[in-house]
Amino acid sequence: MKSHIHIPPLNGIRITDPLFGHYADMVAEKLIPYQWEILNDRVPGTEKSYCVANFRIAAGELDDVRQGAIFCDTDAYKWLETLAYCLEAGKAQEYEAVADEFIELIGRAQQPDGYLNTYFSVVCPDKKWTNLSEGHELYGAGHLIEAAAAYYKATGKDALLNIARRFADLICTVFGDGEGQHRGYPGHQEIELALVKLGRITGERRYIEKARYFLDIRGGEPNYILEEIKGRNGELIFPEFKNYDPKYSQSHMPPALQTTAEGHAVRAMYMYSAMADAAKEYNDSAMKAACRTLWKNITEKRMYITGGIGSSGHLERFTADYDLPNDRMYCESCASVGLMMFGQRMAELTGEAHYYDAVERALCNTVLAGIDAEGDRYFYVNPLEVWPDNCLSNTSMEHVKPVRQPWFACACCPPNIARTLASVGQYIYAQDEKSVYINQFISSVIDTRIQSAGVKLSIESDLLGGKVDISILSDRAQPFTLRVRIPEYFRTPQFVLEGRSISPVIENGYAVLAVSRAGEQHLRITGTVQPAWIAANTHVRADAGKVALQYGPYVYCLEQTDNGSELPNIFVRSEADIRIDAPTSELPGQLPALKFDGKRISSGVENALYGSPSFQASDVHLTAVPYGLWCNREPGEMLVWLHSLMSL
Amino acid sequence: MKSHIHIPPLNGIRITDPLFGHYADMVAEKLIPYQWEILNDRVPGTEKSYCVANFRIAAGELDDVRQGAIFCDTDAYKWLETLAYCLEAGKAQEYEAVADEFIELIGRAQQPDGYLNTYFSVVCPDKKWTNLSEGHELYGAGHLIEAAAAYYKATGKDALLNIARRFADLICTVFGDGEGQHRGYPGHQEIELALVKLGRITGERRYIEKARYFLDIRGGEPNYILEEIKGRNGELIFPEFKNYDPKYSQSHMPPALQTTAEGHAVRAMYMYSAMADAAKEYNDSAMKAACRTLWKNITEKRMYITGGIGSSGHLERFTADYDLPNDRMYCESCASVGLMMFGQRMAELTGEAHYYDAVERALCNTVLAGIDAEGDRYFYVNPLEVWPDNCLSNTSMEHVKPVRQPWFACACCPPNIARTLASVGQYIYAQDEKSVYINQFISSVIDTRIQSAGVKLSIESDLLGGKVDISILSDRAQPFTLRVRIPEYFRTPQFVLEGRSISPVIENGYAVLAVSRAGEQHLRITGTVQPAWIAANTHVRADAGKVALQYGPYVYCLEQTDNGSELPNIFVRSEADIRIDAPTSELPGQLPALKFDGKRISSGVENALYGSPSFQASDVHLTAVPYGLWCNREPGEMLVWLHSLMSL
Repeated sequence: MKSHIHIPPLNGIRITDPLFGHYADMVAEKLIPYQWEILNDRVPGTEKSYCVANFRIAAGELDDVRQGAIFCDTDAYKWLETLAYCLEAGKAQEYEAVADEFIELIGRAQQPDGYLNTYFSVVCPDKKWTNLSEGHELYGAGHLIEAAAAYYKATGKDALLNIARRFADLICTVFGDGEGQHRGYPGHQEIELALVKLGRITGERRYIEKARYFLDIRGGEPNYILEEIKGRNGELIFPEFKNYDPKYSQSHMPPALQTTAEGHAVRAMYMYSAMADAAKEYNDSAMKAACRTLWKNITEKRMYITGGIGSSGHLERFTADYDLPNDRMYCESCASVGLMMFGQRMAELTGEAHYYDAVERALCNTVLAGIDAEGDRYFYVNPLEVWPDNCLSNTSMEHVKPVRQPWFACACCPPNIARTLASVGQYIYAQDEKSVYINQFISSVIDTRIQSAGVKLSIESDLLGGKVDISILSDRAQPFTLRVRIPEYFRTPQFVLEGRSISPVIENGYAVLAVSRAGEQHLRITGTVQPAWIAANTHVRADAGKVALQYGPYVYCLEQTDNGSELPNIFVRSEADIRIDAPTSELPGQLPALKFDGKRISSGVENALYGSPSFQASDVHLTAVPYGLWCNREPGEMLVWLHSLMSL
Repeated sequence: MKSHIHIPPLNGIRITDPLFGHYADMVAEKLIPYQWEILNDRVPGTEKSYCVANFRIAAGELDDVRQGAIFCDTDAYKWLETLAYCLEAGKAQEYEAVADEFIELIGRAQQPDGYLNTYFSVVCPDKKWTNLSEGHELYGAGHLIEAAAAYYKATGKDALLNIARRFADLICTVFGDGEGQHRGYPGHQEIELALVKLGRITGERRYIEKARYFLDIRGGEPNYILEEIKGRNGELIFPEFKNYDPKYSQSHMPPALQTTAEGHAVRAMYMYSAMADAAKEYNDSAMKAACRTLWKNITEKRMYITGGIGSSGHLERFTADYDLPNDRMYCESCASVGLMMFGQRMAELTGEAHYYDAVERALCNTVLAGIDAEGDRYFYVNPLEVWPDNCLSNTSMEHVKPVRQPWFACACCPPNIARTLASVGQYIYAQDEKSVYINQFISSVIDTRIQSAGVKLSIESDLLGGKVDISILSDRAQPFTLRVRIPEYFRTPQFVLEGRSISPVIENGYAVLAVSRAGEQHLRITGTVQPAWIAANTHVRADAGKVALQYGPYVYCLEQTDNGSELPNIFVRSEADIRIDAPTSELPGQLPALKFDGKRISSGVENALYGSPSFQASDVHLTAVPYGLWCNREPGEMLVWLHSLMSL
């Protein structure tokens, strides 16, 4: 029998890890209140959200002009989803009443036929569904559904779920191949994976079928999006969509035929996630193969070492294989969230642990970098090299911010990071009928059931120290399998169960342990985890002759506050010793700093702009901190890839 | 008495240099016909110009929609200016009748009050002078005047000059501080330097005074351009001007107070040129000091080794000191033309030779790179590193074209390069009351008068061989001074006059030779000119640890056709021998190729995207060609700055 891997409910999971526990608590305690104030436009000096006001306008309870991004309803939906995860974990309960009241408002903003979108219903009710390429109505519906599913699972309350279902039912009626139905698909994918979630939570297959429908008609000829724009005589909400390239929205060919990651990275990730869902739901081997190919293209040719994706600063999109410039790219926080979603689904689909390599890379680096330790400042764009002076003065670099921002006019990222960090447990654990999967060595506890047995696992991870203790407690002698992903950087793993060395088989990247007796057992996994210099593939021109520092899943970086300015003048030998130092006290998570010696190079050209080289080097003692935590201290330059002094 | 340096007429100058002679002939023989066909929309498969058609529409002789860039009249004006220089040099005479007929058309397109602009007079005659920030009316007038002055000097015909004067007179009436006058200034400078030219050629000071007026009111508070945009309720022709930054048009403060080169690089250069003109006309030491400061900021902190300027790909503008990224910048061909104009005027103003260093750098590298050897393909943007795959796929890099284009929707560059190459003599020679200045060692002949003496100079330059022969022929025994700029790269110069070694004084960078006898004398200047590795100032982060190859004024580059792809993996020792090789036969000018040995580095990471470094090097034999001539063969990658293998 084929196993069906699924994610256990978060209410059984508690994060105890000093780093991820910090973020999970912070989201519940600080971010939920902060973002709620933002959504209500009560934080002075930031970009205004207009989000809650828009629902009041749509409900007819406020007489004002609908403002904010066309898709900003979704900021509230993602906030609700985040809150749901907090509630499910037993946190932020004081916001449940706030949420319930807001959900009532959302209900009042919904139109009698189920339609729900504050932009179209207030600004141009006659234009519903006429601008799928830019309008984000289906995208908004998707986030509503995701929030509703999460809120229902967390609270058992179905008010939001019923709102979402009414909208989903309308969508199922409006879209399709039948008489009078609209054969269109969204310009920004999201509805597809959401409809799969809705189908699963309600048990109604028709939602999953509509998700499949949207995937199936995408990329057909003539191109729906181009036809739609043509039908409006080229009239656009977003002028940057002039000369629209269907690759931008992955509508250049049917999804199952796509072999390279193209276009807007977030759109791509949400679509690939839905493709993986569809491959699983329909046992569709062609779709599964396409997912594998796309994943391979991303992770082997188009992904930064930080798990960032999208190397074009304009249109936030993928470019060419190995085109990974370090300072001007996009690497949107949401895109890395999307990469985690896709990877998680690929692991669900295949049972293969390696998909979590990139999930972990994205989580521990780009996703963490997208938010500060206090939860109230965010990066949208996540470069690997920052020089504040040139970001601020260079109109080509305007998308790159040298410090995190309190909010954005287009604010997709802050609540997307929030919902990810609030639900990080779903990236740690998975289950199938007879197994529990441990996908990340993040200290935590899970309390779950496997068939009739109550099973409690407790991970105490000293990951960077190469030691992970797992306590396994089963309330009855019913066999199950523990599958533990052994990450690539966790070398020469040794397993000791109840004091006895064991050699579990490794299957699909998981160490497989059969558990059959009741009571508690203790598994210790030790391995060699050392900070290491990493090079990029020779084809990555931007990293030619450079090295980066990685310790376990964490990419490290130099910050100006530790190492002075003009960081690109720092050169290091790729054999240089790396010393593990005490954690930087201002940073959360107690991750060690890393120290090493290098050279600061001067060209010898000091009084002119160009001249005869006379390279000189002075010794420098350098301190690197985790990239995911950068810019939590004094703002300044930051650099991941360092020039290598090669001994050749 | 203060000397008044001026540029001698081109009709006395003949270019015999194999490189610049090629371009001067090519412009007359091929480019003039090609661009005329383009301006008449008779070249299939290219961007349409609409330029001549627009004049016909404005003249009421064609009933059609006015199309093309708002400022595309200037493409014709620059074509006429280019033709004038060709005619002045005795070339392209078969186009004089074509030009005369076209000038008549321009005259018919002029309105009774002298107004002349096909966009406003056809499309929105009620909006004249209401949108100086975007409308380019004064910019267009400036190019009309420059063309008219050149055409008058070349042919003695005043038809175009009269058209230009009528428009200039209207401008003098419309703009000013008087009752009913408009206190505005152009969003794109050009009228100022043109009015100075017009004042000089007509002897009417009021034109120069109006140029001064436009400079004087610029940058005052409240900002005219911001007020104008506000007055239109923010309505814009160019959406990119949303959130207009007055620095963009150098209107953030009065010109004489500006100390750093800011904003759109072409606007800046045209304004600084006018500032240098004004400093000379008014003997204004504050303006002169501002010009010196701005020049210093550009050439010491904001200029590429190729003489390219404008390091932001978006808005074509300056950014911050030492921010000189090599692949994504603008380096517009027009901006380097403007740098030549500014430098030439600074040398006129100060009598100092060093201003020609950057003029020569811009001419021999970026300006030449902007055009192919045949004159029918052009670069607008001139990067120092090109990887075609990423330019084509990366929406952030869309401004960078990996091959020259047959025309542009915004086609300022092709005719701007053309007029510069057709008038290159004006960058070689200058004169004052008692001197002739030789500013470039470009083989050529000049026939001129100094006071009552007829003087003929003939330069035979083997510049890269370090040998320049100058024959000096004076028709009478009247003393004059020959001032010869000795470029920085021309080391240990030796002077031999009529077989006798002499040691001329060096004054303001010029070797000064008193000539007093009639008849011919022969001066030989020899020096050491060697290809050399060059480094950038330590503050230039983009060039950290890199070297470029320069030979005399020519920057060299690697092209894929000679050296394979993935050029950034090439490393070279900055002590590597450089071998002077035969010229590449497909390239004009007989400049030698340069050969050297280097290493092609691989990171050792081949089957994954990231991994443990194991840098390996293989020996490679490399061929560099002049940057100004790149992309005249098989298209592909190109690279100027090479990683250096430092021996430290």
